[in-house]
Amino acid sequence: MQPEATVERIRVRYGETDQMGHAYYGHYALWFEQARAAWCRARGFTYKELEQMGYMLPCVELHIKYRDEIRYDDVIEVHIKVTEIRRAAIKFEYEILNTETGKLCTVGLTWHVTMGGHRKAVTIPPEVRALLERPPQAP
Amino acid sequence: MQPEATVERIRVRYGETDQMGHAYYGHYALWFEQARAAWCRARGFTYKELEQMGYMLPCVELHIKYRDEIRYDDVIEVHIKVTEIRRAAIKFEYEILNTETGKLCTVGLTWHVTMGGHRKAVTIPPEVRALLERPPQAP
Amino acid sequence: MQPEATVERIRVRYGETDQMGHAYYGHYALWFEQARAAWCRARGFTYKELEQMGYMLPCVELHIKYRDEIRYDDVIEVHIKVTEIRRAAIKFEYEILNTETGKLCTVGLTWHVTMGGHRKAVTIPPEVRALLERPPQAP
Amino acid sequence: MQPEATVERIRVRYGETDQMGHAYYGHYALWFEQARAAWCRARGFTYKELEQMGYMLPCVELHIKYRDEIRYDDVIEVHIKVTEIRRAAIKFEYEILNTETGKLCTVGLTWHVTMGGHRKAVTIPPEVRALLERPPQAP
Repeated sequence: MQPEATVERIRVRYGETDQMGHAYYGHYALWFEQARAAWCRARGFTYKELEQMGYMLPCVELHIKYRDEIRYDDVIEVHIKVTEIRRAAIKFEYEILNTETGKLCTVGLTWHVTMGGHRKAVTIPPEVRALLERPPQAP
Repeated sequence: MQPEATVERIRVRYGETDQMGHAYYGHYALWFEQARAAWCRARGFTYKELEQMGYMLPCVELHIKYRDEIRYDDVIEVHIKVTEIRRAAIKFEYEILNTETGKLCTVGLTWHVTMGGHRKAVTIPPEVRALLERPPQAP
Repeated sequence: MQPEATVERIRVRYGETDQMGHAYYGHYALWFEQARAAWCRARGFTYKELEQMGYMLPCVELHIKYRDEIRYDDVIEVHIKVTEIRRAAIKFEYEILNTETGKLCTVGLTWHVTMGGHRKAVTIPPEVRALLERPPQAP
Repeated sequence: MQPEATVERIRVRYGETDQMGHAYYGHYALWFEQARAAWCRARGFTYKELEQMGYMLPCVELHIKYRDEIRYDDVIEVHIKVTEIRRAAIKFEYEILNTETGKLCTVGLTWHVTMGGHRKAVTIPPEVRALLERPPQAP
């Protein structure tokens, strides 16, 4: 079964560019993070609630391929889906498209682990797994 | 008595520029923050230790005048001093100089309040006041 | 005549917080900038177009008062208006409200100058002044 | 022949943390970039000079594995070396160590391409290749 992507639209900020005239390579991490939050909301919960339940999902791996530049004021779409859930880790994959040209600008992935109360990695608890495995809900 | 300035040298990062070709106006806050940390260390303590003692110094006011642009790879000097300590607040003033030209690029100030354990503003406690009023120590 | 405010809604990113648990004081500059872009679009042009016409509006002064903390995932509203246009400078004023509580969290202002082709400050040219003095357009 | 690593020491800024209490995953890109600049300087040139010669080295791939957390005020060492130079691309590898504990916190790599005057990818020109293949110079 193909996981369903959630799409988050973002307008690129001036402060996200650098003197090369396009978006700085480190700021994509912020867009990926915003997309993850949108992914949660599309499933009826928020990442903030996960933290209030006592869990955090720190990123343990980040991989980005920058195929085409992204510029100031571009409206991009981050397409995000979960492609793997392991015992204690979850993988997100990302594609960034330029909404004006339709061009695929970026592909990426992140791996996250579940951390519990004492900042220790834990097996994904059932109540968290239930949230992560939810299908997207009607908007 | 004129307060003694502490000087922090910083090399400007590429990611701190924007497409105008100079440093983005929001990133100066990071340099001011780095200068405050240096100011503490020059007096024999660290801001981190203040937080470990249970206090935080959140910024409640920021004022920056950008007189001359700062560019990628410039080595700047942030001159920082405390110019006022009130019952529950402390004021830092900043000057940023370009080390190559000697030019004054930026002046600024920040006000900070003391927050205690329950995230409430508190009168600066004596042990914190003692640290903040210390003279700079021989390096 | 009271200038009309433009309102920009922004959801606070995780990467915009710091270990104090609320938004880092430097990142507000990004929200102000996003609000300025929205202010332009509400008047039928974009800041990007201004730059394509050969003009830039670098910030020469920033003043922020942080009245109430802003947290991760908060949806804030930046209310922005132009309160003064001089021969060669323009002033924006900002108020940030928390949309959930309605509370006024932040007030601020920025001054910008007009820079022309050779990175020199210039009198605001008539075609730029015409844009800046436009009333907001029906959405 | 094992390439020689250049080492860049960096103190973590408060604004580089997030509410999880450690460094935000996107800010590592800034440290990698600072390390690349140091790598150039160790070889007697600067990345700024490369841009003045008309070349840019945009990042086309970023890969980071976050093994151990990095916290505010930690002094980290970024060990950087070039591990591959192709016709039109160069690969940097990174290790971040905590200087207090000696622990390896992060491993990463970036790929960069050479862009010439018209923002087109070009074969690494001989004068740039000569710089990139230089051995580190006596400090």
